Amino acid sequence: MRPSERSPDSMRTVTIERGVAKHAEGSCLIRFGDTHVLCTASLEERLPPWLRGQGRGWVTAEYGMLPRSTHDRSQREAARGKQGGRTLEIQRLIGRSLRAVCDLKLLGERQITVDCDVLQADGGTRTASITGGWVALAECIGWMRERNMIDLNPLTDHVAAISCGIYKGTPVLDLDYAEDSSAETDANFVMTGSSGLVEVQATAEKTPFSQGEFLDLLSLASKGIGELVEMQKKALA
Amino acid sequence: MRPSERSPDSMRTVTIERGVAKHAEGSCLIRFGDTHVLCTASLEERLPPWLRGQGRGWVTAEYGMLPRSTHDRSQREAARGKQGGRTLEIQRLIGRSLRAVCDLKLLGERQITVDCDVLQADGGTRTASITGGWVALAECIGWMRERNMIDLNPLTDHVAAISCGIYKGTPVLDLDYAEDSSAETDANFVMTGSSGLVEVQATAEKTPFSQGEFLDLLSLASKGIGELVEMQKKALA
Amino acid sequence: MRPSERSPDSMRTVTIERGVAKHAEGSCLIRFGDTHVLCTASLEERLPPWLRGQGRGWVTAEYGMLPRSTHDRSQREAARGKQGGRTLEIQRLIGRSLRAVCDLKLLGERQITVDCDVLQADGGTRTASITGGWVALAECIGWMRERNMIDLNPLTDHVAAISCGIYKGTPVLDLDYAEDSSAETDANFVMTGSSGLVEVQATAEKTPFSQGEFLDLLSLASKGIGELVEMQKKALA
Amino acid sequence: MRPSERSPDSMRTVTIERGVAKHAEGSCLIRFGDTHVLCTASLEERLPPWLRGQGRGWVTAEYGMLPRSTHDRSQREAARGKQGGRTLEIQRLIGRSLRAVCDLKLLGERQITVDCDVLQADGGTRTASITGGWVALAECIGWMRERNMIDLNPLTDHVAAISCGIYKGTPVLDLDYAEDSSAETDANFVMTGSSGLVEVQATAEKTPFSQGEFLDLLSLASKGIGELVEMQKKALA
Amino acid sequence: MRPSERSPDSMRTVTIERGVAKHAEGSCLIRFGDTHVLCTASLEERLPPWLRGQGRGWVTAEYGMLPRSTHDRSQREAARGKQGGRTLEIQRLIGRSLRAVCDLKLLGERQITVDCDVLQADGGTRTASITGGWVALAECIGWMRERNMIDLNPLTDHVAAISCGIYKGTPVLDLDYAEDSSAETDANFVMTGSSGLVEVQATAEKTPFSQGEFLDLLSLASKGIGELVEMQKKALA
Amino acid sequence: MRPSERSPDSMRTVTIERGVAKHAEGSCLIRFGDTHVLCTASLEERLPPWLRGQGRGWVTAEYGMLPRSTHDRSQREAARGKQGGRTLEIQRLIGRSLRAVCDLKLLGERQITVDCDVLQADGGTRTASITGGWVALAECIGWMRERNMIDLNPLTDHVAAISCGIYKGTPVLDLDYAEDSSAETDANFVMTGSSGLVEVQATAEKTPFSQGEFLDLLSLASKGIGELVEMQKKALA
Repeated sequence: MRPSERSPDSMRTVTIERGVAKHAEGSCLIRFGDTHVLCTASLEERLPPWLRGQGRGWVTAEYGMLPRSTHDRSQREAARGKQGGRTLEIQRLIGRSLRAVCDLKLLGERQITVDCDVLQADGGTRTASITGGWVALAECIGWMRERNMIDLNPLTDHVAAISCGIYKGTPVLDLDYAEDSSAETDANFVMTGSSGLVEVQATAEKTPFSQGEFLDLLSLASKGIGELVEMQKKALA
Repeated sequence: MRPSERSPDSMRTVTIERGVAKHAEGSCLIRFGDTHVLCTASLEERLPPWLRGQGRGWVTAEYGMLPRSTHDRSQREAARGKQGGRTLEIQRLIGRSLRAVCDLKLLGERQITVDCDVLQADGGTRTASITGGWVALAECIGWMRERNMIDLNPLTDHVAAISCGIYKGTPVLDLDYAEDSSAETDANFVMTGSSGLVEVQATAEKTPFSQGEFLDLLSLASKGIGELVEMQKKALA
Repeated sequence: MRPSERSPDSMRTVTIERGVAKHAEGSCLIRFGDTHVLCTASLEERLPPWLRGQGRGWVTAEYGMLPRSTHDRSQREAARGKQGGRTLEIQRLIGRSLRAVCDLKLLGERQITVDCDVLQADGGTRTASITGGWVALAECIGWMRERNMIDLNPLTDHVAAISCGIYKGTPVLDLDYAEDSSAETDANFVMTGSSGLVEVQATAEKTPFSQGEFLDLLSLASKGIGELVEMQKKALA
Repeated sequence: MRPSERSPDSMRTVTIERGVAKHAEGSCLIRFGDTHVLCTASLEERLPPWLRGQGRGWVTAEYGMLPRSTHDRSQREAARGKQGGRTLEIQRLIGRSLRAVCDLKLLGERQITVDCDVLQADGGTRTASITGGWVALAECIGWMRERNMIDLNPLTDHVAAISCGIYKGTPVLDLDYAEDSSAETDANFVMTGSSGLVEVQATAEKTPFSQGEFLDLLSLASKGIGELVEMQKKALA
Repeated sequence: MRPSERSPDSMRTVTIERGVAKHAEGSCLIRFGDTHVLCTASLEERLPPWLRGQGRGWVTAEYGMLPRSTHDRSQREAARGKQGGRTLEIQRLIGRSLRAVCDLKLLGERQITVDCDVLQADGGTRTASITGGWVALAECIGWMRERNMIDLNPLTDHVAAISCGIYKGTPVLDLDYAEDSSAETDANFVMTGSSGLVEVQATAEKTPFSQGEFLDLLSLASKGIGELVEMQKKALA
Repeated sequence: MRPSERSPDSMRTVTIERGVAKHAEGSCLIRFGDTHVLCTASLEERLPPWLRGQGRGWVTAEYGMLPRSTHDRSQREAARGKQGGRTLEIQRLIGRSLRAVCDLKLLGERQITVDCDVLQADGGTRTASITGGWVALAECIGWMRERNMIDLNPLTDHVAAISCGIYKGTPVLDLDYAEDSSAETDANFVMTGSSGLVEVQATAEKTPFSQGEFLDLLSLASKGIGELVEMQKKALA
């Protein structure tokens, strides 16, 4: 029995609210239950120096948590003077995931920065960030196409992500914080709209897991990501 | 004529939404027009080392802007590795303002941290932070009193803040970004519910201002802060 | 009765010694009683990148305190690896104050950096820095004019600053450290030679202050700044 | 055809040389072809403050590359003033992998730090670090048992790691740099001596991969890790 | 012929002014010609954690240059966020030199920090700092003895320092900046009042130097340090 | 009697192994007994901005110790976020020493960075770094000459370094850690192949030393460096 009383293969209620940031070229507020992430996509007409002159653009991501998005207040990274290892790891993952479905040559020499800021956390912030980040990116690209800045759509597919885990011996989909903090195994899957795998990360938190258990998680993830892609489509419609 | 077509002594629409953060002991989302600030108050049962053993508590504040809360994306302070001078100045101001109406001895040896994070900026983020920060603080203190952690209310009064400025020669109340960026003089006033002055900061952005002009700004501010205190009361009712 | 036995409206003895730094284009050692600040103005023929190509120059300021300028030794900011919030706040104030009386277009694409280093502190270091910083800046501009680097004088007026406060219920001029550390209200005023206000900063350290009290402080400040401007004139004569 | 002319399922020559660091409680130099990593295990009788008093020890890891271990010299992280995101990600992975096979209660309140320093890099430095780090850790634990510092062996199993990837359409084992830099998919597997999975990380570098391809990689990894565990046994014999 | 027209074995005019810092337990302003260093000694009744409980005290030094003490303005180390290698090297040298003549057991568990801040630089700032730092330290120890904080004098001897160099082929004493910047060899000697060597540092700036040349420099230094020790005695008398 | 039972004027066994780093243009592993330093020379076809356009190249050095190269593990400088004062001091010394025998004009506008990383420490790491660093630099220059990148040899001489000290009253050559940590005086000498002095650094660790003692150390160093230069010649042969 899951703490939330969800069945093993059901996700939390997911909502995607678009156009929430007045200044950004693309934005959404995505909610996975009590996990709320504000995603913005910011277009800049210039690249960092090391990417210039190669005839292609760049998509990058940054991630942050508000200090009291968590159960206990955590120190503000700006005050501490550096981003932690977990933050760097997550923002690298978001950036790689979004670039996996973006033809950077079609962007031109421009950079899009997707900021994912966690307003409230209850597990699954990195997967919500990828799923919502893609919507903000798509909105930004729509904004560019309306202005005829690019002819062809650089987005080659959807990308979305979900966590799975083994909780009290049972493989379950979309861990909330109560499950995440006591799961035996914790995994994150990033997949495209056409079911291609982009990233797989699985970690034994307590005891090693078997190949069979791993395949169960993969199967749950496929189901969940299929549903998320449908929600992305609806949000953009 | 103001860009927003407001009269010189009218504020933007202000709303205060309480209880917006699941984990925090106190919180609100305050909006001054398109300026939106998420304020949380976090209670900790311990003080930083240099404040221990003095029989009193502490109220402190931190301030941040999401990278794309502004018209152009600004660099994330956590990524840059330090908080800028403006951020430090603002968070010191918020903390001083809140402590001015708080009897720290009645708090006991506890710390309350008020985080003010700007989700969207359109001028006046520091005054919105003080006004909303007080509401989050009051909610946190209510939370403590419900649990009988303290007997007497440490809050001695309301505190709220508003900006004023001289825009195209006319003293106006509550500058938005369009006005702020071209005003001749920019001032911030922090006052209590009983009209006591807590902080006054006025800066000539272009040409020095006269004592008469300054008194006009002070008078506008008194009016505005009176209205803000009423809204705080309504929000807490 | 003030600890120094001064009357409420009298300043400490102020002296300004010019030409104290062999290498600098402008310099002075300014003393407000036991507060001693070494001010230098350094001319550079280049601007930081973000200011280039706009047909105007820049005046900026930096502020520091020697570790044992204070009663107890304070940590060296260079060793601590960053400038504190108070330092950043003060150097921003000095820079803004000096730029308020400087026509940057007449400077040409050059930068003048005014360094204010506190050799000994006894209250009022920021106001001494502004008052002395202006003298160093004026000496530097004289140096440039002697060399025909500029035709017209970019300085449009004098600028000087003084602190005031409410000490044991009485408004007093030019707080020394003993008064500053126990005053109910502490204010700093920056004004031009023609009595225009450039910056006003007033803070209730203990209890809020009334508008009447504030006007008393403003009146004391006007008197004091008038005297400081006379001393600047004498120093430059 | 692989650049090294290896068959798809064959690893590079792996050697493990023990006892290479005079001062360390455990150490080895592990070579995967031209990838050379010096691993040391350092025992300290004290824990960091946040781990004290919980009746258990800690195993942590740090990772670094010598500046010219790589084809082009990379900047020294100590000179740059911070560890990069990749470094933090790798050292977190090594630490988690080693703790997965260590009963921290049996260690007592002690910390073992495993340092993995890459002397020469040719792909697969993180997997060599985990495989060699386990040998250094085991040697350190042997050192403790010889001195009767602990009765029972805290190590519950072997742990080793290997990379796999899809190179020109073919799943291959143990990528060297030439393959790694042009592989379509890159994966790292961490497994125990009894074939339990500890960590799985797979990334589509160019195009998404299918579940079938992923299973091929998993199967190659199982074979490779089996061989590595045999080498660990031989090294410790 | 030296730029200053001094003979090879003559120093610049040296003056030592005591008691220049109101707050410090010991202080002096030392001048070697146009090189001016403000030295303060600050007594603290507590040691840094790693030195506690060993029944002895500590003497340490910090060094800094005001940004415009030099011919061209140099960046403020506090603003740059770290002390440079040269600064760290010099302050380590000053601390070692002072400790060489101080019996730390007689100090008790206290720390004295000697701050040497260069107000104006014209070569030889490190040797002026050591020579003046010793005077500030001696004054601080006198202050302690007047208050009966210690019975016996922890200072076992004088210590002073001087630079020498080979300038246009001639060994000369006490290089000023004009000589220092073009000398073939540059050396600093630290010696006690009884002619014992404490530190020797010699560097070939252009071409290697011979043992004979080195002995000439040593002989000049002995002469100079003898004179400096006499000045220290006079200053303390 | 020395702990190692060496006679006062005998060095530890020194070996120099060349070509140990696959990627570097020059490299060696130098051992002074149990002190092992990996030295690499990295050629870059570009200079840092402040050295460009002056018609000459640059040779610089960086130094680091692996965390467990020492008896007790020391903190990784990359993790601590900065290089310590000792590290900066040593790498400046290595760089100066190498440049003393290199005609930078003959290098062309190129930079060679010599990295000296201590794999195992037992005293004398800085002198081993200079001696081995020269071999790596010479190998790198040979590599350039084979490719006809330069016509003339920029190396004007050998350079090598050795430590000496006064241990239990006796001047001895090449201190190991046991001697270094209890020597009364510790000195490092850097000399060329033709016996010219490049750097002399001597420090009284306990009691000042006399000129006679210093000359004994200088004489021991001359003997030692003569032997080291022979080994460099043999290594390069």
